[in-house]
Amino acid sequence: MCQLLGMNANTPTDLNFSFTGFTQRGGRTDQHADGWGIAFFEDKGLRHFVDPQRAVDSPLADLLRRYPIHSCNVIAHIRKATQGRVALENCHPFVRELWGRYWVFAHNGDLKDFRPRLHAHFHPVGSTDSEHVFCWIMQELAKSHAGVPSVAELTLTLRELAARVAPHGTFNFLLSNGQALWAHASTQLHYLERRHPFTQAHLSDEDLSVDFSAHTQPNDRVALVVTAPLTTDETWTPMAPGELRVFVDGASA
Amino acid sequence: MCQLLGMNANTPTDLNFSFTGFTQRGGRTDQHADGWGIAFFEDKGLRHFVDPQRAVDSPLADLLRRYPIHSCNVIAHIRKATQGRVALENCHPFVRELWGRYWVFAHNGDLKDFRPRLHAHFHPVGSTDSEHVFCWIMQELAKSHAGVPSVAELTLTLRELAARVAPHGTFNFLLSNGQALWAHASTQLHYLERRHPFTQAHLSDEDLSVDFSAHTQPNDRVALVVTAPLTTDETWTPMAPGELRVFVDGASA
Repeated sequence: MCQLLGMNANTPTDLNFSFTGFTQRGGRTDQHADGWGIAFFEDKGLRHFVDPQRAVDSPLADLLRRYPIHSCNVIAHIRKATQGRVALENCHPFVRELWGRYWVFAHNGDLKDFRPRLHAHFHPVGSTDSEHVFCWIMQELAKSHAGVPSVAELTLTLRELAARVAPHGTFNFLLSNGQALWAHASTQLHYLERRHPFTQAHLSDEDLSVDFSAHTQPNDRVALVVTAPLTTDETWTPMAPGELRVFVDGASA
Repeated sequence: MCQLLGMNANTPTDLNFSFTGFTQRGGRTDQHADGWGIAFFEDKGLRHFVDPQRAVDSPLADLLRRYPIHSCNVIAHIRKATQGRVALENCHPFVRELWGRYWVFAHNGDLKDFRPRLHAHFHPVGSTDSEHVFCWIMQELAKSHAGVPSVAELTLTLRELAARVAPHGTFNFLLSNGQALWAHASTQLHYLERRHPFTQAHLSDEDLSVDFSAHTQPNDRVALVVTAPLTTDETWTPMAPGELRVFVDGASA
């Protein structure tokens, strides 16, 4: 199994604090040591980092813990391999282009014996069940809509598609096209909305606190979605099995 | 205009020395200060870094000058914007997936009034002429071959496609799918093959030398392609206008 971390915000926000706690699970506080990855949207542009090393001692992850990249939509993943060897091409998140937008996908779970037919233009580069199902989702989205639909329409389509995959295994995933963050829970996913009045938060995985009131404006809103709560003094809401939720402008839509 | 740097090797090789010289042109020894990018294949996997900052003082470029990433196929680019604003989505190299492989493309030049129709599944995310023509090349490759063809067949198709684009402007480009590096010259592109016996080389853009004989094995072969020669004491071969050359296993094939 793997772990997921997603952020959706209404103003470009850095993820250094959360990423610091999250990456401790990539070899120190937890055993997800088979690679990691993170993708940051900046408007329609994308920064995509993947690495088959342990996140806890990767020089690249170290830079990203210190260097603030401001983004409204971020998806991160730490991997414990279940299907597909430990290799760069099997690190999440995966990226494809559709309708002139990048789409980013990361998966936590295992889809045994589920290999839907890929008859269109999206094919996996690596050998994971996750990348295969992402290509199938892209294929089905492309078939369902002629051009890029509204976030509300995409959410309806994704809810249908997720329900077709979920019976085949564990299917917690995060998806973003830079406009919204979609989160689907199958077994384990929690979310949190930070908004005014901002308070202090302490990481679960490292002795580190931050006072968000010192780094925010009253109108800022940030939603975080993560496999297991990242902080000890905030209220994380568990998602229900089968629930698909969309976050826009830092709030659950 | 922009500048290009490509590497093709028969054994995973780091590009730190060349990248150090090349990125000096991103704001110090030359004026290509509108962003930079680099993509490293590791087998079929890809590390892709883009940044709209000047390469000479980007923290990410700084890490990549110091941190050895070993690869057999690398494409780098520093940008001086001609078409498309300075933004992350307009930084080269661009990436698409076709036939279950990543394809990486970077362009130096300007294609005025050339916007071939994109009627298939590849669409630009940004607003450059370069990403548009890359999407067209992907579309035409997909139409020309049912699955991933041999490098020799791809070279024939690419030669035809490049000849259709070249009359519309300046079209120096680098393309790789992790198996080979294709280079097309329109105005300015030079290449070099390093092989046994290895010697010392000195950068043109920085007072830095390296003795390759201390870092190589007798069977190693590395080909470099670059807009303007990177070293002062090696013989770079200029490519002819209209020439498309393919490099495999560190040598011109």
